[in-house]
Amino acid sequence: MRKDGFYMPARVLCGDDAVRKYAGEMKKFGSRALIVTGKHSADACGVYADICAALDEIGTQYCRFSDVEPNPSVQTIMKARDYALEQGVDFVIGAGGGSPMDAAKAIALMIRHADKDADYLYTAGADGSAVPVVCIPTTCGTGSEVTAVSVLSSDKLKTKKSIPFKLFPQLSLIDGKYLMHAGRKTLNNTGFDALAHLYESYINSSATPMSRMIAEDGMRVWKNNLPVLLGEKELDAESAESLMKAAMLGGIAIAHTGTSLPHGLSYALTYNLGVPHGQAVCFFMTGYLEAADPEDCARALELSGFESVEQFGRIYKECCQLPDVPGEVLRKTLDACTADLAADPAKCKKAPFTVNEELLRKIAYRSLTV
Amino acid sequence: MRKDGFYMPARVLCGDDAVRKYAGEMKKFGSRALIVTGKHSADACGVYADICAALDEIGTQYCRFSDVEPNPSVQTIMKARDYALEQGVDFVIGAGGGSPMDAAKAIALMIRHADKDADYLYTAGADGSAVPVVCIPTTCGTGSEVTAVSVLSSDKLKTKKSIPFKLFPQLSLIDGKYLMHAGRKTLNNTGFDALAHLYESYINSSATPMSRMIAEDGMRVWKNNLPVLLGEKELDAESAESLMKAAMLGGIAIAHTGTSLPHGLSYALTYNLGVPHGQAVCFFMTGYLEAADPEDCARALELSGFESVEQFGRIYKECCQLPDVPGEVLRKTLDACTADLAADPAKCKKAPFTVNEELLRKIAYRSLTV
Repeated sequence: MRKDGFYMPARVLCGDDAVRKYAGEMKKFGSRALIVTGKHSADACGVYADICAALDEIGTQYCRFSDVEPNPSVQTIMKARDYALEQGVDFVIGAGGGSPMDAAKAIALMIRHADKDADYLYTAGADGSAVPVVCIPTTCGTGSEVTAVSVLSSDKLKTKKSIPFKLFPQLSLIDGKYLMHAGRKTLNNTGFDALAHLYESYINSSATPMSRMIAEDGMRVWKNNLPVLLGEKELDAESAESLMKAAMLGGIAIAHTGTSLPHGLSYALTYNLGVPHGQAVCFFMTGYLEAADPEDCARALELSGFESVEQFGRIYKECCQLPDVPGEVLRKTLDACTADLAADPAKCKKAPFTVNEELLRKIAYRSLTV
Repeated sequence: MRKDGFYMPARVLCGDDAVRKYAGEMKKFGSRALIVTGKHSADACGVYADICAALDEIGTQYCRFSDVEPNPSVQTIMKARDYALEQGVDFVIGAGGGSPMDAAKAIALMIRHADKDADYLYTAGADGSAVPVVCIPTTCGTGSEVTAVSVLSSDKLKTKKSIPFKLFPQLSLIDGKYLMHAGRKTLNNTGFDALAHLYESYINSSATPMSRMIAEDGMRVWKNNLPVLLGEKELDAESAESLMKAAMLGGIAIAHTGTSLPHGLSYALTYNLGVPHGQAVCFFMTGYLEAADPEDCARALELSGFESVEQFGRIYKECCQLPDVPGEVLRKTLDACTADLAADPAKCKKAPFTVNEELLRKIAYRSLTV
């Protein structure tokens, strides 16, 4: 029997007004919550108001930490942890995109380890117990609501890196309405991030029959939303539901396999040129798909609604404009992307084919010739 | 956004020699295990020896309770619980078909509630905490390894009934090799039970987009095994893996929806005429499929490899011989099946269509005219 498995312990509840409807599920987590959000979007999309109403309804007190920046830093986590200890909170609710949800997990860890300093966040093998975490996504990419991953930026490590703890949320509340407030750029960026999770999990040396089944399910769901991402169709409630579902399935898939080369290549593109995460990752997808087993590549493309790698590449370019920088600057960055990944053998091993620097460079540059 | 969700907290690990390979996962559950099995098959298929070897390897002590009968009784649970308390066990391992796994969950509950008597097992709303449970299936039907359900026989209630507690195992270890020792009858009976879980979850008033997605995945997997169930192909390692996978997916699906009319109708057929569970359930499937929305019915049949309801009915009859009883006896039993279900409005509501006694009778009798 082939190696296989499944583990995703979060309770996921979806639907209209999920946050208020399932408020009672949060009662058992304690009497005071820390609500972790970014600066603006949690107010704009209405999720913050919904959380307050839900907690009022069940008589749970709360306070808010709204200083989570994109790619949240270790310093931000420690600031939020100190505030949480001051406030005596019992659990943490992260609402927004990947940043507030990832931050919520790390804050929950550090609340439980109140005597530890920031170094604890990157102490492999340390006790990973944490206070309960509730995740409420408002975008359609990260999948953090169903993964154990928390990616932070560390000045000390001078990079963005997953902390070495498995921190699944206890509860995820998903309502498509929050996505209705996202602009086209956020939709496209996070929508392509979800697709990257599905592809990179499907074509992955850690893939199992179950993880591939879930990735296939996610691709089938994702497929229907291409007209929305292309701007040919208005985002409606059904598409919002479907995009959030695809993102969740992408999250469950990578929770089992981790990501692969495109994620590994993407970081310098984001740092150096400010390319949003999902766009940066999918910049490398054309090359990754071409390097994969042709049968796997064809199946992934078909399930997600593309006729060929070329067509995928063209549609990606239509949906995700890259920053307008001189060719030389872009090439220099792509070389940095290649060098970063070549220096990360663990990530290179996630590809189910043999990787060398020449192949990595080929994958890194492939989008330029679509 | 439509109501949807997912919850299945058990860690599932599959593969060759899963029990020995993942022995380390059991270490955290304590220093002494109760191994719960039936009388013979756990020895015949090798799972008992594997469990002993695994526990020896991690230095965990163990004792065995091998008196679990098919459709385990409340008395058996109490006998095992008392033995477990005497032995001072920390967790319970259930290995076999549905009976030992369901029993293991109930025993784990009663160990934690050591001061309570048998009545506790059916006390709705009581504290459902339990010591950890590990499930190891050796057949391909029940799905108990991924459900929170424990069905017991109660002399007091004079029926077989799920206890009102949600008891998910912490860990499920799945290895197709144990199925290689099952005879054709067990294969067919449990294989059709898994199919019933997939169909009854798919066509169910509690179905959600996620539960239907999982049921569809399970049907796709189940489909490939029909030649084995028909005896046209020998059971090999790949089919064993696939049958166990389909059963697991059926379990995850019903963990979200519960079963529907065919399960509700089946009990008297099992009691009165001794028809094995899966066969008894699928006796009513032809009628259930015909009563369902035609589009749902067509999709379920297509995904699982059947051309029509009639063809499903014929193949079912080929795989599962009913006991040779006079027509009058069978009709009397089918009337009892109908009466039992008509008296269970909660079960009737699981059908996503309006049910009356006439329709129930029609479903109950439908197999006779295939």
